[in-house]
Amino acid sequence: MSTVAMFAAGEERWAQYERPLRDAFAEKRLEVELTRAPGDPAEVDYMIFAPGGPLTDFTPFTGLKAVLNLWAGVEDIVDNETLRVPLARMVDEGLTEGMVEWVTGHVLRHHLGMDAQICRQDGVWRHNVPPLARDRAVGILGLGALGQACAAALAALNFRVGGWSRSPKAFDGITSHHGEDGLAELLADSDILVLLLPLTPQTENLLDAQRLALMPEGAVLINPGRGQLIDDDALLAALDRGHLGHATLDVFREEPLPAAHPFWAHPRVTVTPHIASETRPMSAARLIAENIRRGEAGEPFLHLVDRARGY
Amino acid sequence: MSTVAMFAAGEERWAQYERPLRDAFAEKRLEVELTRAPGDPAEVDYMIFAPGGPLTDFTPFTGLKAVLNLWAGVEDIVDNETLRVPLARMVDEGLTEGMVEWVTGHVLRHHLGMDAQICRQDGVWRHNVPPLARDRAVGILGLGALGQACAAALAALNFRVGGWSRSPKAFDGITSHHGEDGLAELLADSDILVLLLPLTPQTENLLDAQRLALMPEGAVLINPGRGQLIDDDALLAALDRGHLGHATLDVFREEPLPAAHPFWAHPRVTVTPHIASETRPMSAARLIAENIRRGEAGEPFLHLVDRARGY
Repeated sequence: MSTVAMFAAGEERWAQYERPLRDAFAEKRLEVELTRAPGDPAEVDYMIFAPGGPLTDFTPFTGLKAVLNLWAGVEDIVDNETLRVPLARMVDEGLTEGMVEWVTGHVLRHHLGMDAQICRQDGVWRHNVPPLARDRAVGILGLGALGQACAAALAALNFRVGGWSRSPKAFDGITSHHGEDGLAELLADSDILVLLLPLTPQTENLLDAQRLALMPEGAVLINPGRGQLIDDDALLAALDRGHLGHATLDVFREEPLPAAHPFWAHPRVTVTPHIASETRPMSAARLIAENIRRGEAGEPFLHLVDRARGY
Repeated sequence: MSTVAMFAAGEERWAQYERPLRDAFAEKRLEVELTRAPGDPAEVDYMIFAPGGPLTDFTPFTGLKAVLNLWAGVEDIVDNETLRVPLARMVDEGLTEGMVEWVTGHVLRHHLGMDAQICRQDGVWRHNVPPLARDRAVGILGLGALGQACAAALAALNFRVGGWSRSPKAFDGITSHHGEDGLAELLADSDILVLLLPLTPQTENLLDAQRLALMPEGAVLINPGRGQLIDDDALLAALDRGHLGHATLDVFREEPLPAAHPFWAHPRVTVTPHIASETRPMSAARLIAENIRRGEAGEPFLHLVDRARGY
């Protein structure tokens, strides 16, 4: 009897993932019956899940061994009380690489002051040499897989990198902070701040008026994490009065960002359309296959979510 | 009798370098008499040189042991026939770091397609995810200290990096090419091309119409090397007909770039005002002091120029 994996994500995802998943199962010589509509819910062993589909009640899936999330963020499923089996997050190499590229690129853009040269050339030669990265402080909120990878890439370019996480963590080349006091310290010492926290009740609106006010005059905020980490009105107010120099945002409370949203037209805001990090089907499918192999072999799953913590 | 070092560069440089040089000599416990106007040219041991000053005839300096250039580029002095002593180039850490930051930043900018998001926001959400760096080919012409450092930084970000130099060289993580055939191969395989060659009779106008035509449709040219490496008219023609997608230029045949030059207003050209790499006085002064120490101790000078080769 083969293993049954149900694909519970939208139509568009099926078109993207069916082939890579079948290829990844074949690579690992797994006999998996991949289906979107199982005959009997009790026969489903693994659920491959992305938010936005019709599935919200896991109760009928009485034989379920694990839910394997296609996304890194699990805020849409982690509080689902009908889910009583292990939940694994996506940690996709392509996702990490894309994030490192986007974050490093935008940090360097602000560090070098590129915007004036890209958009507002007037024929005047202004020989303003930017400081070296070693004299530029970059703060990273969130030191999970993505935050660590970005911190390492920026430290390799000689940026003075500080990181903050809920609990104490230590990494080479990075000054680590934790707790409320540590957050205040890091905010006050970040010329450029990058948000890579998961969305939890504790991190929602973390960047409110009070904490934004702790940042240095002219500091830049970069958010490729989750839109809800920032109080949008407080951010707009801080930009309007010139306390913050710029915000580069890839994620928003509502996506696509509505055309009438003030972020689009604000001269100190750059909107990018949630492109910093995107799961790549083939590498994601390989992780799903690996977790199914582990489940069937009785080995521990990779990237399990701590549901009490929320990520 | 103390060692005499003559500072032969413009007034502005003296203001920048006098203090750092005196500090660097003190750090190394060197007794150096630093002067701009020696009593007797025959008593000068070392010449600290930058182009643009009045000194063009080295004949009176009969006791000279070496000329220590404040700049990386030596094209203004290397062919001076009155110079018959060793000539050392500047290889400044700050200079290399600044170059790596500028090159990595502009490569990522073009890789991620930032310009549309920075300058032309219209409220339309275009979810075009850029490819990963591993699927982007970057070519680097010139594998000296700066080219190697940039290639290593880009390879660390997973870019597919190819390099070209006059003579064969091999480095980890980089595909190396050399000679005329190697140049044609690399040009044809570079989505983004970075020029870091020295200026010599062989490299002047290297990027002419014929070689630009070898680059892929839509490729990007980045020049932080020397303005004379490119045939400007051929570049403008390639941009105008859309064969090249963009040129980001930090160096020019005439600097400051004249306000009327077509590069300023061209929609496919970004001008930056020679900021990619700038000698930092303190680290540069330390290298000058180290070379004087070596000269006095009878040790070989660092970063000697091969005057037949021209760099």
